[in-house]
Amino acid sequence: MSNKRKPWINWILFLGSLVIVFLLGLLISSISERKMEAKFAYTPMTEINDLEPRNEVWGENFPREFQSYYKTADTTFRSKYNGNAVIDMLEVDPRLVVLWAGYGFSKDYTQGRGHYYAIEDLQNSLRTGAPTGDHDGPMPATCWTCKSPDVPRVMNEDGVEEFYKGKWSRLGPEIVNPIGCADCHDSKTMNLKITRPALIEAFERQGKDINKASHNEMRSLVCAQCHVEYYFDKKIPGKEKTPYLTFPWDKGQTVEDMEEYYDSIQHVDWVHKLSKAPMLKAQHPGYEVHQMGIHGKRGVSCADCHMPYKTEGGQKFTDHHIQSPLNNVANSCQVCHREEEKELIANVFSNQDKIIENRDKLEELLVQAHVEAKQCWDLGATEEQMKDILQDIRHGQWRWDYAAASHGGSFHAPVELGRVISTGIDVTQEARIKLSRLLIKLGFEGEVPYPDIETKEKAQKFIGLPMEKLKADKERFKKELLPKWEEEAKKREAAYN
Amino acid sequence: MSNKRKPWINWILFLGSLVIVFLLGLLISSISERKMEAKFAYTPMTEINDLEPRNEVWGENFPREFQSYYKTADTTFRSKYNGNAVIDMLEVDPRLVVLWAGYGFSKDYTQGRGHYYAIEDLQNSLRTGAPTGDHDGPMPATCWTCKSPDVPRVMNEDGVEEFYKGKWSRLGPEIVNPIGCADCHDSKTMNLKITRPALIEAFERQGKDINKASHNEMRSLVCAQCHVEYYFDKKIPGKEKTPYLTFPWDKGQTVEDMEEYYDSIQHVDWVHKLSKAPMLKAQHPGYEVHQMGIHGKRGVSCADCHMPYKTEGGQKFTDHHIQSPLNNVANSCQVCHREEEKELIANVFSNQDKIIENRDKLEELLVQAHVEAKQCWDLGATEEQMKDILQDIRHGQWRWDYAAASHGGSFHAPVELGRVISTGIDVTQEARIKLSRLLIKLGFEGEVPYPDIETKEKAQKFIGLPMEKLKADKERFKKELLPKWEEEAKKREAAYN
Repeated sequence: MSNKRKPWINWILFLGSLVIVFLLGLLISSISERKMEAKFAYTPMTEINDLEPRNEVWGENFPREFQSYYKTADTTFRSKYNGNAVIDMLEVDPRLVVLWAGYGFSKDYTQGRGHYYAIEDLQNSLRTGAPTGDHDGPMPATCWTCKSPDVPRVMNEDGVEEFYKGKWSRLGPEIVNPIGCADCHDSKTMNLKITRPALIEAFERQGKDINKASHNEMRSLVCAQCHVEYYFDKKIPGKEKTPYLTFPWDKGQTVEDMEEYYDSIQHVDWVHKLSKAPMLKAQHPGYEVHQMGIHGKRGVSCADCHMPYKTEGGQKFTDHHIQSPLNNVANSCQVCHREEEKELIANVFSNQDKIIENRDKLEELLVQAHVEAKQCWDLGATEEQMKDILQDIRHGQWRWDYAAASHGGSFHAPVELGRVISTGIDVTQEARIKLSRLLIKLGFEGEVPYPDIETKEKAQKFIGLPMEKLKADKERFKKELLPKWEEEAKKREAAYN
Repeated sequence: MSNKRKPWINWILFLGSLVIVFLLGLLISSISERKMEAKFAYTPMTEINDLEPRNEVWGENFPREFQSYYKTADTTFRSKYNGNAVIDMLEVDPRLVVLWAGYGFSKDYTQGRGHYYAIEDLQNSLRTGAPTGDHDGPMPATCWTCKSPDVPRVMNEDGVEEFYKGKWSRLGPEIVNPIGCADCHDSKTMNLKITRPALIEAFERQGKDINKASHNEMRSLVCAQCHVEYYFDKKIPGKEKTPYLTFPWDKGQTVEDMEEYYDSIQHVDWVHKLSKAPMLKAQHPGYEVHQMGIHGKRGVSCADCHMPYKTEGGQKFTDHHIQSPLNNVANSCQVCHREEEKELIANVFSNQDKIIENRDKLEELLVQAHVEAKQCWDLGATEEQMKDILQDIRHGQWRWDYAAASHGGSFHAPVELGRVISTGIDVTQEARIKLSRLLIKLGFEGEVPYPDIETKEKAQKFIGLPMEKLKADKERFKKELLPKWEEEAKKREAAYN
């Protein structure tokens, strides 16, 4: 073993050290730069007022979140259907018109667009009618609850119960900013925050404190403020006649739990125009259904897939472009699932197709049941003869709607939705067995013909909707009242600054 | 920098090297030992004849595989039901008796036990009746096809078509070894091997060559020799009257594909004793349903979960204790899924419960449909009046049976089974709508009462089965003919050695 080194070895060591030190310097410089960038990104430029409703104002401090939020204005993902246009669900599936006969959705139902359109789409919908002032129109003020960060502001100013009172038109000039920052964030800490009382109250009635929810749970609960099943309760003692927004969760969140709840309080959303059945309209029990699926059970939050983390300029942030994860498989699904995007999407579509096949069948059976029930009434059936049948129709359509309205449910919990639809087919067919007996008893031979509802127009004519008048009235509203609301709002907001 | 080392440093280096070299020696010794063990484990002790049917003979060369196979004799996993006893499915669910009225399964249907019991359970079942010689009894020879490694032996000796001819009793003395080694392995190479012609022929009719299957595919295909939907075709040109075992896969493997196939050839497994419907008996489309689920789609083979790899004495081998993965979660599920065993099992049970709920409902509806159809016949209905109804009952029960008989299907492909059951409920209720109209037409008022079938005994009495006679006959068979079969087999096998 030699203890002497050749001098050139020392030189190599020396020069090598220089190179390493230089590279380390570069690395540190890069890290510092990124840290600076991060600091810059979160340096508040503007003081944000408590309950500030304007998303643009928050956007000055949080450009990345705001700019990604703003992408919810983009509807090009629909190009596979009919370009950038709105998808008219009643045109796609005119049977919906019959299922909702006597209810606003039969007039107009377009596929939901991004949060950015929350106000615009509600103002333009035939469902909200054509108010002429602050006291008329078909919808209550409660309908605004999920649409805007102006809601917590007005609730704070007027009180919750006061907010729910009166007509939708009453709050027209107040509710103008589409769903955004203040709906889910505290303006001081930026922490996630529940701003809608219905969710807090539902937790309270179950003896749970929503303030104890973990951050991960909050990443779903802020969505659960709106993407849930709810109804307008007009029977709350002391608050009678106020359509108080309430979640029917007291007995649980399955389709049977909520049905039992509604039945026990004899809640009726509307009486069906053809069958006279006491109907329930499922809203959108997306959160409830998600919790029953494997992603929910594994603790995957809504935001994990619909608002996954993203990196831009060295800055990691939550992508506020809320959208279908199928438009963003790399950042959502593929974080956990090591499969080709094509394969993952095919798996989702496969489950959806299997659910939708029978949901469509149930829809057809419900149309038949409504029409057969109408035939019975026309032949002089009595309330007593119809009672059981109408209850079956109520339960059958509730199951269909729970499955149809829980957007994404065929992905979130396909086995549960398959179960729900099976029970819906069963009970609707039970109604039709009873109807077939009653029809014969009333002197009717053979099958009640399936109505000609091939198009939206034909279906709306079949249920007797005066579409021309509804559209003309809406145009008048948009020309006369709506501009006044917008003007009033502009003045009010100008005073903030 | 000093170029001189202190002498004790050299000593430490020297002693350290000694320790490392010693440890390396230990490691090499351990590896060699394990390699020796492996070599020893696979040194053939016995020459195995081609198509050797006796599992014990194979077991001399492959003790680990044989000993683990032998564990299929263990039925203690049933202790949660009724100890070690056989589970009588007709007692658990007497409605099955009515669904299978006129078919062997209404006499006797016990839950399947391990492969080890394949012969014993078939001999003892009331379904195989009480032959007195080689030419009588209710079942054809074809019924042996899946039960024993004697089958490939006899098929090789007599020819496939010849094997399928005559009565089940004809082959009693020949088929004596339970499902085992030669059913799936080549005796020379130990490679996986398809020994049953029906699977090879089904592939051929689809223009596929089963010899091109990968090893991974073979780990499912050897199971697919038996765990599939099949029927006995008596209409093959040139082979008329021979119940030729055939897979109904020519149009595909979904419930609709196979139904279409059966309808197109007007295949009828039996005519229902009550409703006179032309019934289909689903066998056990386990493989088909597995392929439609996510595990099948991801290329997980049957063996991956039901026969996972195992290590014993340094030797990795395939666990031949074929069983539910739920009894072996650590070696099956947890190889991929990082979840607690309890949680994984809860997830499986949750899906199973959701499927079984509606499967049970469908079962009840089918009982009603059969009973209502019988009422129509009793009231003088015509063939013409009943035709459509009976076809609906056929389709409804086929769907129920496809879901019920595809053992494990509620785990393998719950979304598909949910879909199948929904369509089954729909078509069965359609039958009941038609029945309710026809009943009134035939002068029947109200609902046909649900039969009193609370126990297996009551149900069997309801459908008119002479149970005492069947049992007495079976005892006579077991006392008189069965011992002769066993004696004859012993003599034959003694001649092998």
